[in-house]
Amino acid sequence: MSDPQQRRILLARQPSGPLSADDFLLDTTPVPDPGPGQTLCRNLLLSIDPAARAWMSGPTYRDQLEVGEVIAGYTLAEVVRSDVDELAPGTIVATQGGWQEYALVDTTTLRPISGRGSLEDRVSVLGVTGLTAYFGLVRVGRPEAGQTVVVSAAAGATGSVVGQLARTLGCRVVGVCGSRAKADFLRDELHFDAVVDHHTDDLRAALAAACPDGVDVYFDNVAGRVLTSVLPLMNTHGVIVSCGSVSAYDGEQPASLRALPGLIVTRRLRMEGFLVHDFEDEWEQGEEFLAAELESGRLTSVHDVYDGLERAPEALIDLLAGGNIGKRLVRIASEEG
Amino acid sequence: MSDPQQRRILLARQPSGPLSADDFLLDTTPVPDPGPGQTLCRNLLLSIDPAARAWMSGPTYRDQLEVGEVIAGYTLAEVVRSDVDELAPGTIVATQGGWQEYALVDTTTLRPISGRGSLEDRVSVLGVTGLTAYFGLVRVGRPEAGQTVVVSAAAGATGSVVGQLARTLGCRVVGVCGSRAKADFLRDELHFDAVVDHHTDDLRAALAAACPDGVDVYFDNVAGRVLTSVLPLMNTHGVIVSCGSVSAYDGEQPASLRALPGLIVTRRLRMEGFLVHDFEDEWEQGEEFLAAELESGRLTSVHDVYDGLERAPEALIDLLAGGNIGKRLVRIASEEG
Repeated sequence: MSDPQQRRILLARQPSGPLSADDFLLDTTPVPDPGPGQTLCRNLLLSIDPAARAWMSGPTYRDQLEVGEVIAGYTLAEVVRSDVDELAPGTIVATQGGWQEYALVDTTTLRPISGRGSLEDRVSVLGVTGLTAYFGLVRVGRPEAGQTVVVSAAAGATGSVVGQLARTLGCRVVGVCGSRAKADFLRDELHFDAVVDHHTDDLRAALAAACPDGVDVYFDNVAGRVLTSVLPLMNTHGVIVSCGSVSAYDGEQPASLRALPGLIVTRRLRMEGFLVHDFEDEWEQGEEFLAAELESGRLTSVHDVYDGLERAPEALIDLLAGGNIGKRLVRIASEEG
Repeated sequence: MSDPQQRRILLARQPSGPLSADDFLLDTTPVPDPGPGQTLCRNLLLSIDPAARAWMSGPTYRDQLEVGEVIAGYTLAEVVRSDVDELAPGTIVATQGGWQEYALVDTTTLRPISGRGSLEDRVSVLGVTGLTAYFGLVRVGRPEAGQTVVVSAAAGATGSVVGQLARTLGCRVVGVCGSRAKADFLRDELHFDAVVDHHTDDLRAALAAACPDGVDVYFDNVAGRVLTSVLPLMNTHGVIVSCGSVSAYDGEQPASLRALPGLIVTRRLRMEGFLVHDFEDEWEQGEEFLAAELESGRLTSVHDVYDGLERAPEALIDLLAGGNIGKRLVRIASEEG
């Protein structure tokens, strides 16, 4: 009898410019055996994140992803075999399982995940995505009721949660997105106060019309042209929450930021970056808050799921091209436990 | 008998690019009479500030300075005539007296100034300049002992105070300046730990050598090329205090800030602007602190004084070209009181 095999997806070459299918390689390899301190996990749901594109270009908050490595990614997985009693087979864990069917994980890094919500909710609105929105908005942006909050990539995983949370705080919420379908969704389903398509001819004018009282908090997922168009609308003591610069990940020429340092001085702006891991000690409290919002119906969980590991490259390429509405996931396997 | 006359300096034309003497006009006009609620002040010392160049280019935190107007500027003055008892002739006041020998000032805006230090100290290290350094460093930058603080325009009015205050907080202080004379002064007289000349061929490498542990707080007076060179050295959770962007005031092409939004995210930087007026309620406490530092000898007051109102244009032009060491002042008249 041959060893059990698994499929995985490797970085085939150092990508330049927009990703293509040729940057990825699907291969087959034996399912590994866990050594001491290791747990064998079977990946169920894979989170597809724009940051994966940045990891391929150089060191960020993690080492650069090298050619030949399994593409990194956050997964929900079930335990197959572990030497720790608490991790019985079938236990659901959240981990950096990567783009593969099975992962060997350092047992000490496995964190319990909330039993609330569906698996999809747990990897999106109740997972790192929702926590990113929550801590970025509430702890870095700190908007007050009545203020105007603009969020870019508003139909994306993080942006769609940011906008909904800002509305529950009593803010006027303006979303920036890239298609008519997204705009309709944000207005009709998530009740944003206004939506601006960033493909419009005069983005600055469209934003100004949507923000008659200026902008108090800009939750920036994209940098680039949206950032430079929001900047002149920032109110005195406004805050730019720097969460991502996805416009730069996949080759867009960054718009000129020549006015930025001067505006930061004269309008006394604060532009501040964060990673959700900076707030790791408070995740549990954040999860509680988000679960309560979800259960009350004030927060809608929005997913966009592809089926099958082999579709992960397509799922990322399309995500970077702005194809998703809500959290982009790939279903690698179904729960057995 | 003819009315008493005064000299004043007006903006002769809208300047483009570097200032020249032709942008200014010296004229003579009668000394005005104070109306109800007004105080006639005789300007003694005029503060020459790089922001004056920005005021000529467009609205900032104040309206644009228009052609034909007296150049705006902060002065120490003595009261000549007032309808308020507390403002006896000879009382020293701090005000926006402008580039002229006499100014009519709304009496309610006249603020008492500390009696400590010389007139020069009161308009520099104990005045708005010192307060800018104090609140920007202590309240916005918030460096901790042992951290590395970089300050640009380090031999300038604000920078020279920032660096000295950072040293008293136990920080490693690295100054960026533009001449050998300034570098020597900062190292030998103000005891900076290291100094970098921004004219060096490889500014980034020179800064890296001066900051072996990276940069925790960058007090930015200039933006432009120094900002883009410091950026890659910023430590995680580092702070950029945005105090000025003098490099842009006088025509320098801003260096590319394309990496800025991405670095703010991955290093979780905070870039925050402020105006000293945001802390107006706490000025008295700040003045107390600075006066104590000055009297203890831990803080050195550094001035660079031109004599005569007619030299004010030259004093500003030279300041923007980086000619000053310490606070640039113009002595308009001597104290009579």
